[in-house]
Amino acid sequence: MTESKRKKQIQLSHGGGGKEMNKLIKELFFKAFDNPILTNEEDAARLVLKGPTAFTTDSFTVAPLFFAGGDIGKLAIAGTVNDLAMMAARPEYLSCSFIIEEGFELDKLKTIVNSMASEMKKSGAKIVCGDTKVVPKGCADGIFINTSGIGEILQDGISIKNIQAGDAIIVSRDIGRHGAAILMAREGLTLESDLTSDCATLWPIVDALISAQIPLHAMRDATRGGISAVLNEWAVGSNVEISINEVDLPVADEVKGLCELYGFEPLDLANEGTFVIALPQEYANKAVEIIKLHQGAHSGSESADSGFIGEQAAIIGTVGTERAGKVILKTPWGSSRYLDLPQGELLPRIC
Amino acid sequence: MTESKRKKQIQLSHGGGGKEMNKLIKELFFKAFDNPILTNEEDAARLVLKGPTAFTTDSFTVAPLFFAGGDIGKLAIAGTVNDLAMMAARPEYLSCSFIIEEGFELDKLKTIVNSMASEMKKSGAKIVCGDTKVVPKGCADGIFINTSGIGEILQDGISIKNIQAGDAIIVSRDIGRHGAAILMAREGLTLESDLTSDCATLWPIVDALISAQIPLHAMRDATRGGISAVLNEWAVGSNVEISINEVDLPVADEVKGLCELYGFEPLDLANEGTFVIALPQEYANKAVEIIKLHQGAHSGSESADSGFIGEQAAIIGTVGTERAGKVILKTPWGSSRYLDLPQGELLPRIC
Repeated sequence: MTESKRKKQIQLSHGGGGKEMNKLIKELFFKAFDNPILTNEEDAARLVLKGPTAFTTDSFTVAPLFFAGGDIGKLAIAGTVNDLAMMAARPEYLSCSFIIEEGFELDKLKTIVNSMASEMKKSGAKIVCGDTKVVPKGCADGIFINTSGIGEILQDGISIKNIQAGDAIIVSRDIGRHGAAILMAREGLTLESDLTSDCATLWPIVDALISAQIPLHAMRDATRGGISAVLNEWAVGSNVEISINEVDLPVADEVKGLCELYGFEPLDLANEGTFVIALPQEYANKAVEIIKLHQGAHSGSESADSGFIGEQAAIIGTVGTERAGKVILKTPWGSSRYLDLPQGELLPRIC
Repeated sequence: MTESKRKKQIQLSHGGGGKEMNKLIKELFFKAFDNPILTNEEDAARLVLKGPTAFTTDSFTVAPLFFAGGDIGKLAIAGTVNDLAMMAARPEYLSCSFIIEEGFELDKLKTIVNSMASEMKKSGAKIVCGDTKVVPKGCADGIFINTSGIGEILQDGISIKNIQAGDAIIVSRDIGRHGAAILMAREGLTLESDLTSDCATLWPIVDALISAQIPLHAMRDATRGGISAVLNEWAVGSNVEISINEVDLPVADEVKGLCELYGFEPLDLANEGTFVIALPQEYANKAVEIIKLHQGAHSGSESADSGFIGEQAAIIGTVGTERAGKVILKTPWGSSRYLDLPQGELLPRIC
């Protein structure tokens, strides 16, 4: 390998704790993520927090690293920020830890890092501490990113255990896009469509719901396991029956098509910028209206660049008490069936 | 593969967000790490903190996973807890994220998880949130673990920028053991010795120093890049000259022997339970005395099980102003040379 090619790749020395690592950290990470807490170079960031505070972590191993609608960097920020947002916590401080395979292209790393920096602008979160490990070729597949996040809880009591009979269930947009986009990228499919992942930072939407004083009972972004997993965990967690009208579930035609082709259920497919809410029936319409105001890049609104398109937000079901712990799916033909927690692993490395 | 063998291995479905993942989380992780914040099953842990607070992250990719004196689980707890301790922060809350290769033995995972649970007892830290990803065979090497940590800063102002002319430099024990132990394990060496990694939770020792009201200027555990990296970062960070007496540096004979065999410098080798302190000269002897009270499993003291053996704690140097930004190593023969930041990567995947 020529010296110039080597310079464009990550070397083991970039994770060695010496000169090369310091250079990578200062010239790439500190520049992209610049803030005074990060660049103080102590062993840990120094924060001043006031309780209650939310704390969460996620490792991202998605393959491929780049997909329609995002990349692993965008996902690593949006994913952890969304976990905070789902607790009604304002995303404030993030940690960021890279595991990079020796030989990984420096240009790709820069693209990913810039994507992270850009996504953080959508919530105001800051990376305040980090870590970089480089493993020999063949010991990891490209790059894995862990982000942990801390944020102040603005509306307390939102919980998997707080869903009540009579609540409405809302989904924030059409479902299954992230899983479908990854499947498409992985299979090398080029559909006659503009199917993209829903990957997006949800804090602006949650912030708007909190500001409008909507009494949120439970919120969760429907990532791995999709809507099915969230609803089943909720039904068990609050010991209620959740009943969903299939006809009200927004699903894009492209997602439906891919599901038919590969034998997936849109309800089981992962999302990365789609969330479910349980809240009192009388606030459901107002919440849907607020979500619909967020129209991604085309709206011209303040949150124009969040990438979240809420035009298909919908009330999809209700909460009852009869078959506690179960999720019921009502079909358009009047029949109904149990919707189960997904089993097996159909689509690995989705996030 | 037989069904019973499959059951003893991690499958892709263990990371799929469905039934199998829930089972793994509840039956293994929740049992080992049990505490009410973790098991509430929300998207994020809910904490009540009062500032100032330290926040840090580390990913662990060590190979081999098991070595003399520890394993990746012990390392993943001690490493992050020590980063908090070095800020004089009481380790309180940890996140834990696993990236596991498909086919990884469930028994090994249990050993690692139990090792984590046992190491947390030495500081009182608790895992309050987590994440599990499984990647297909060949996409990772066994298991990687990320831990992020949060803790209350008990003594503020400890900083890489706070080292002052006239300060003494202390090392807490003999150096280079972790690097040497990993090298030994990797090369399949069985020395006629009981060389073990120094991997240990340092909070009990730091807690004792704080309780004794020792005015600590800077503290850092000398992990990747060893003592050389810490001292060089300090000399630059505080714009001072740090002068070290080689003869005062405690190094075990086994570590010296391995270094001669492989051409390493003990000062560059990684440690995982050895730290450096800068503090006013007049407190140096008292600090060394306190550190020496910690004698690992043989002492019968309160911290008997911390695994830290401080009997070789020593004052190794002083801080001056002349050659600011430089570290000077004084040899036993009266000569001296610059001690540089390590370069290159001699020993990858040390932590």
